[in-house]
Amino acid sequence: MTTTGLTSEVPLDVAAELAAQLRVDSIRSSTSAGSGHPTSSMSAADLLAVLVTRHLRYDWDDPGSPANDHLIFSKGHASPLLYSVFRAVGVVSEDELLGGYRRFGQRLEGHPTPVLPWVDVATGSLGQGLPDGVGVALAGRYLDRLPYRVWALCGDSEMAEGSIWEALDKASYYQLSNLVAIVDVNRLGQRGATDLGWDMGTYAKRAESFGARVLVIDGHDLAAIDRALTEAEGATGGRQPTVILAKTVKGRGFAEIEDSPDWHGKPFPPDMAERAIAEIGGLRNLLVRGPRPEPAEPGPVPPKPSTVPEQPDGQVKASADRPVYKAGDKIATRKAYGDALVALGGADRKVVVLDGEVSNSTYAYEFARAYPDRYFEMFIAEQQMVAAATGLAVRGYKAFASTFAAFLTRAYDFIRMGAVSGVDLRLAGSHAGVEIGADGPSQMALEDLAMMRAVHGSTVLYPADGTSTVALVAEMAATPGISYLRTTRGSYPGLYDDGEQFLVGGSKTLRAGPDDQVTLIGAGVTLYECLRAADLLAGQGIAARVIDCYSVKPVDGPALTAAAEATRGRIVVAEDHHPEGGLGSAVADALLAARQRPLRLTRLAVREMPGSGSGTELLAWAGIDAEHIANAAREMMGEPA
Amino acid sequence: MTTTGLTSEVPLDVAAELAAQLRVDSIRSSTSAGSGHPTSSMSAADLLAVLVTRHLRYDWDDPGSPANDHLIFSKGHASPLLYSVFRAVGVVSEDELLGGYRRFGQRLEGHPTPVLPWVDVATGSLGQGLPDGVGVALAGRYLDRLPYRVWALCGDSEMAEGSIWEALDKASYYQLSNLVAIVDVNRLGQRGATDLGWDMGTYAKRAESFGARVLVIDGHDLAAIDRALTEAEGATGGRQPTVILAKTVKGRGFAEIEDSPDWHGKPFPPDMAERAIAEIGGLRNLLVRGPRPEPAEPGPVPPKPSTVPEQPDGQVKASADRPVYKAGDKIATRKAYGDALVALGGADRKVVVLDGEVSNSTYAYEFARAYPDRYFEMFIAEQQMVAAATGLAVRGYKAFASTFAAFLTRAYDFIRMGAVSGVDLRLAGSHAGVEIGADGPSQMALEDLAMMRAVHGSTVLYPADGTSTVALVAEMAATPGISYLRTTRGSYPGLYDDGEQFLVGGSKTLRAGPDDQVTLIGAGVTLYECLRAADLLAGQGIAARVIDCYSVKPVDGPALTAAAEATRGRIVVAEDHHPEGGLGSAVADALLAARQRPLRLTRLAVREMPGSGSGTELLAWAGIDAEHIANAAREMMGEPA
Repeated sequence: MTTTGLTSEVPLDVAAELAAQLRVDSIRSSTSAGSGHPTSSMSAADLLAVLVTRHLRYDWDDPGSPANDHLIFSKGHASPLLYSVFRAVGVVSEDELLGGYRRFGQRLEGHPTPVLPWVDVATGSLGQGLPDGVGVALAGRYLDRLPYRVWALCGDSEMAEGSIWEALDKASYYQLSNLVAIVDVNRLGQRGATDLGWDMGTYAKRAESFGARVLVIDGHDLAAIDRALTEAEGATGGRQPTVILAKTVKGRGFAEIEDSPDWHGKPFPPDMAERAIAEIGGLRNLLVRGPRPEPAEPGPVPPKPSTVPEQPDGQVKASADRPVYKAGDKIATRKAYGDALVALGGADRKVVVLDGEVSNSTYAYEFARAYPDRYFEMFIAEQQMVAAATGLAVRGYKAFASTFAAFLTRAYDFIRMGAVSGVDLRLAGSHAGVEIGADGPSQMALEDLAMMRAVHGSTVLYPADGTSTVALVAEMAATPGISYLRTTRGSYPGLYDDGEQFLVGGSKTLRAGPDDQVTLIGAGVTLYECLRAADLLAGQGIAARVIDCYSVKPVDGPALTAAAEATRGRIVVAEDHHPEGGLGSAVADALLAARQRPLRLTRLAVREMPGSGSGTELLAWAGIDAEHIANAAREMMGEPA
Repeated sequence: MTTTGLTSEVPLDVAAELAAQLRVDSIRSSTSAGSGHPTSSMSAADLLAVLVTRHLRYDWDDPGSPANDHLIFSKGHASPLLYSVFRAVGVVSEDELLGGYRRFGQRLEGHPTPVLPWVDVATGSLGQGLPDGVGVALAGRYLDRLPYRVWALCGDSEMAEGSIWEALDKASYYQLSNLVAIVDVNRLGQRGATDLGWDMGTYAKRAESFGARVLVIDGHDLAAIDRALTEAEGATGGRQPTVILAKTVKGRGFAEIEDSPDWHGKPFPPDMAERAIAEIGGLRNLLVRGPRPEPAEPGPVPPKPSTVPEQPDGQVKASADRPVYKAGDKIATRKAYGDALVALGGADRKVVVLDGEVSNSTYAYEFARAYPDRYFEMFIAEQQMVAAATGLAVRGYKAFASTFAAFLTRAYDFIRMGAVSGVDLRLAGSHAGVEIGADGPSQMALEDLAMMRAVHGSTVLYPADGTSTVALVAEMAATPGISYLRTTRGSYPGLYDDGEQFLVGGSKTLRAGPDDQVTLIGAGVTLYECLRAADLLAGQGIAARVIDCYSVKPVDGPALTAAAEATRGRIVVAEDHHPEGGLGSAVADALLAARQRPLRLTRLAVREMPGSGSGTELLAWAGIDAEHIANAAREMMGEPA
């Protein structure tokens, strides 16, 4: 191979050669795989050739270096281009590119994932790479305080996703001059022209109005690209993100299909690929790298827009001391979440917190006041909140992100993609279930347990009291993957004394005796109802076992099967959630997997659409209060084993 | 009560009195309930007073009149203001306002829902009312072709939601001059200042860049409000939506708390309420209505931006004929979905279709070509797609909306809120599961069945072949609530001949005999694997029953229990989905609810993170192919009953 640029600046004519190679390799890889997006790669090949050779500061031999710039393909379907870049810099072989792309068991997947060490986040669901990049840039500016830059290659189709505008809004609010979005405006989406086509002026006005410095260029003019990237670099000291709007042609380089709407996401058949490669000038074997980053020490802490709640009730003291609650004392688990964050934050500088403009409800504001430098207000933009947490996690921060549990549904695609990225995300949803009362169903999370359980590798926790909340928040900090904590609006008496242990996958048996005839299982607010139901049953001579199933995923299979055996398979589960996919499903799944026999499972859940009311009224209306639990248990007594 | 405006134009000084009454009643209702948002209501009281008396054309005695304007409170937490308007126009009594607000069993819920006949859609999850309004305005301009207008009252906090910008993008693309967003810029969110505060200039630039006519006013100057609303009305003949940016003061009218960040979402204690009411001039009992709409006939069909895919493979013929497939012929269910839509559309003018820029993958483009006037391209904006479908449903259209199943996760909050609204939405998700192969996990829906099952009142369908798909799409058209159809990328042989019946809640037993020892349950792609597994088992002398569980919710409990009884409780379920909340859960729930004993349920699902590969490779890798199903069934044979 021809080797260039390892030590000195790569000239533009070499970048031109590289662009040709990237096109050829994008064609070759997708044709060899029989699927993929060559044309969407070809439109951006010139942009990448100049970026990679002359601007991206990256040590390809040390992808983990904190000094490296970050390159995010928000248009993840252009993976042939990305992988062709990897070949050009010498980290992926030609054999792998041609033989591994999109193949089973290989790492060059259809859309990039961090299985590859040079990839920060999984993309392929459009409108997520730039928001993720905002998180990386937040880390760079405010936490790492290192001069690396974040370059996000966006497609024009994805500019229709609202999440892109959430990202630019936050990027300008947080003055992320270290973030550069390069938009490949090739005019064509999957099924035809985009909303705005080549209307560069409207794109520019939009991006400017959202606070970006905007440069409009011909995306196939290497000198223009180079000037724009240089200007973006020069803007790093400023207070604005840069958006480079590059007018490009889909399929550029192969006249037969240039600017054609018929060639989205289609590899060229071999004969076409041959013609295309010939037109581009044949195969090349350039090995070319751009600048490596200079080692750097963290800079001073820059001023951050004030985002700490304006409530006048005084500062919260930063402290690593674990909050202590006594059994019997009333506290809301959301308050305990805030207290726990303060303690975590005092013990670990890597802990950072984000919230969706409800920090005085989720109690994330306690952390915000204690450690304002590590708190990021995301306003009412839940997608961006999760994306920013993802980007912060890429840089090694332990990000906790909170909002009302109901509004995490807004970010489900981002949570799902976080799992594909393999990042560790800690999510907290407050105000779950009908327990919240008067605000009505729009604010009641009744799908969140199902949603979060279905995420690959997730952990789902739902503590009932303060002590267990604090312990489980600490567990989350040590838990890989996506973890979710469901908290409750109202205050309830503490059940556990300080020092009690709570583990992911555990449970607590709160009532048990040799004569137990039925097991009552609750979590969060319904645990209190189970305890009260046990009292009601005891008054009628029925001994009931009560389990605090605070770990919904993984669920404590051994404890559940032991209880089921002890109570002749009689189980009542009550949950403040719809009947599908929540706590009852978790219990059922565990008992069925354990081949529990006999098994008589009654599941109480919220089966109708709630309205407003008090929490007490609504728990009764839904049939998940103590009286209904006790009734369900009694009915079971009459059934055959 | 003082009655004004029933026949002639209400003068502005009466509107001023009404504004005072709306403030007083917002205070009274929230104080009486002990919760609610008086200050967020007071900031918008002047806007509503002028709108309702002089511009909103609404027959309060006939809320179902197609001629009525539409009033959507995108800032649903300002429900005290809305309900105070309802009192002022005489449709809600003072008793109800004071005694019913936020109370159990009452219709004046914490956030408005269509339980009230004057409310189109449930709001309270911010950033949804305006997107829903886009759907209503689409109906008004292109389908009803009636001169009604859609007025959406937005909060400034919700301008941080990307969905607002998706909405404005589509509103300008579709030239919705019948849509007016009135933004109550009171500077304060829940926990403090908003992102942009009172930066009216930036809001204006953003809205203009997204294609709106923008008017910036003092939201407490009644004459200015009146001029702006008049101008918005005058713009109806044009091609742009109007955004009125009203600078307001939170808590306006009660100096003690005006512009204070400490009074979000808090009712005034009785003593404060008394002072506030005194300052505003005491109680009022105005009964005042604004203009009624003139009866109108549908206008001509306006030109619509071209959104029909540019693919060159000819027009699809509009036809009401049901597509017919033969057993054995290969077809993808996504293709059958498109064919079915064409037939439905031919038979029913109320059927409309939306897609998220993947209509050539979902095959919604067949409908687009057959009936371009009833097809709405939403580009890559899934939230807006579902919101537009919701708005179209408000006007009585049967909206089908499709994208890749994985990307419906993007719209989960909108789907959830659609259920709260009680609208009928038909959603179709293509490319489900690992079956899609090479594109990798970002494109593989593996959470969609869990997500959709957990929605209140939802219907979840997953047909395996063309005939069943066509039948179930027709079922969806007649199914209330949120219905979801999961379709498959690849083509598979038809299992059923034309004319076979498929019902919501049904199933098909494809293999059954007196000697069945185990039941294999699949849906979609895994049904074919179950059939193949039955062949493998038959070769080993084990007779297996095979059930096509195409209705995942409601699931066919009777057929499942009958099969379980016939095969001594031995059931194997295989699904191309994560193990939580999907088909296996539906089967388990049904059998547990039926107290099925014995029960030995083995659930095969996608338990690890997939990569790229062929569908066949990935089904085997996930352990959901015929060999794994047969193995699971065989293992079960050795277990005790």
